[in-house]
Amino acid sequence: SGLVHIKNPHLDSMEEDVLYHLDLGTKTHNLPAMFGDIKFVCVGGSPNRMRAFAQFMHKELGLTGDGEDLADICAGTDRYAMYRAGPVLSISHGMGIPSISIMLHELIKLLHHAKCRDVTIIRIGTSGGLGIEAGSVVITDTAVDSSFRPQFEQMVLDDVVVRSTELDKDLAEELLACSKEIPDFPTLIGHTMCTYDFYEGQGRLDGALCSFSSEKKLEYLKRAYDAGVRNIEMESAVFAALCGLCGLRGES
Amino acid sequence: SGLVHIKNPHLDSMEEDVLYHLDLGTKTHNLPAMFGDIKFVCVGGSPNRMRAFAQFMHKELGLTGDGEDLADICAGTDRYAMYRAGPVLSISHGMGIPSISIMLHELIKLLHHAKCRDVTIIRIGTSGGLGIEAGSVVITDTAVDSSFRPQFEQMVLDDVVVRSTELDKDLAEELLACSKEIPDFPTLIGHTMCTYDFYEGQGRLDGALCSFSSEKKLEYLKRAYDAGVRNIEMESAVFAALCGLCGLRGES
Repeated sequence: SGLVHIKNPHLDSMEEDVLYHLDLGTKTHNLPAMFGDIKFVCVGGSPNRMRAFAQFMHKELGLTGDGEDLADICAGTDRYAMYRAGPVLSISHGMGIPSISIMLHELIKLLHHAKCRDVTIIRIGTSGGLGIEAGSVVITDTAVDSSFRPQFEQMVLDDVVVRSTELDKDLAEELLACSKEIPDFPTLIGHTMCTYDFYEGQGRLDGALCSFSSEKKLEYLKRAYDAGVRNIEMESAVFAALCGLCGLRGES
Repeated sequence: SGLVHIKNPHLDSMEEDVLYHLDLGTKTHNLPAMFGDIKFVCVGGSPNRMRAFAQFMHKELGLTGDGEDLADICAGTDRYAMYRAGPVLSISHGMGIPSISIMLHELIKLLHHAKCRDVTIIRIGTSGGLGIEAGSVVITDTAVDSSFRPQFEQMVLDDVVVRSTELDKDLAEELLACSKEIPDFPTLIGHTMCTYDFYEGQGRLDGALCSFSSEKKLEYLKRAYDAGVRNIEMESAVFAALCGLCGLRGES
């Protein structure tokens, strides 16, 4: 059907669904009218960057009106920012798995309530490259954890549930094909390592704490490279897990 | 000495320390002049709320000038916002352990470079209360994980390092004593459970995914209460761990 899959039997019996961190809700907003025609969702960490991306899309799509003063659809909250340009929604998610996870739960419910069909979601963001040319774009085939395993461990109450972190292979190939149309745009497909920590968890030597040597850091990063990791960031694992479970065509 | 402890032997040999996510640095800013007299740091998730808190402190401290248009010290980045009112710094940290962790690493280095002494740091934020009056303030004695253990598991490269999550007991008692001077200000000391997830990890029935029953949720929350948990949030564990390791007097 192309609809988003909500896997929560409790939702049907709720009179109202408040998407608290987006400052939207089923009683306060007409979500099908506002979002029913959305086909693409692009998400990234920084609110300013996601506004700039929406402005860029506005121009690229040749939409009428001034793309310079797009309204923040989530203006009532400063947790996330959301802009739209035609069928494209551009949303910020902050930094780290917990932050993007809150946004994705509420976004997935939004797409469900709005009865959106055949939505493609793409995470765009900065990441640390591993053994690749600076400025390269890495299209993720699979997100891996800090032990290079293709899985995401989700706590459900006090149980650990292991989820798959594979992303949409066809979409990855399509994006790679697009990149080839642009000159000097180094792009590759590879694994993306998703960590919970920016300093100690990614081998940085300049945090407030650092207990490892430069050699140990390089040995770890080499093992990551040998396992297929081409970049490191902090959101792809839960992004891949939630897209997979909810039937969203996703890339990171 | 009252100075902040940096536990990173690499820092001394660095020519410049760029506090990237704060848009500050040792070569671009005179950190001792800007921050050397800071005695209190208050941190919370939302940038708007931390600006409002700095404005409130500006008035409470009877500082001259208009507290209404305090400048964001981190205006060059939208990752975090930072305001000061006299000896009080007010900083946002976003949502979740990874997000607050990045900010704390850079804040701790900032306090170190600025040669601050005897700094007290307090996290203030919303949290879900457990078996307590709505609107109560919970002062954390110890942060616990989703299995109620008083510890934080930090990934260092691909090793798990277990850290203590005890907070400053004397500071907790001082804050409790302050609360008693204010009428109708329900305040208590208890454990705070810190989770990586807002929906499935905190027993919410209204996420995009929910695989447990209302009974199972209540059974889990009752076990948490019996273990001494009085509220649930998403940052206290790494906050407690980093404050403890770096010699910051901290409360949450």
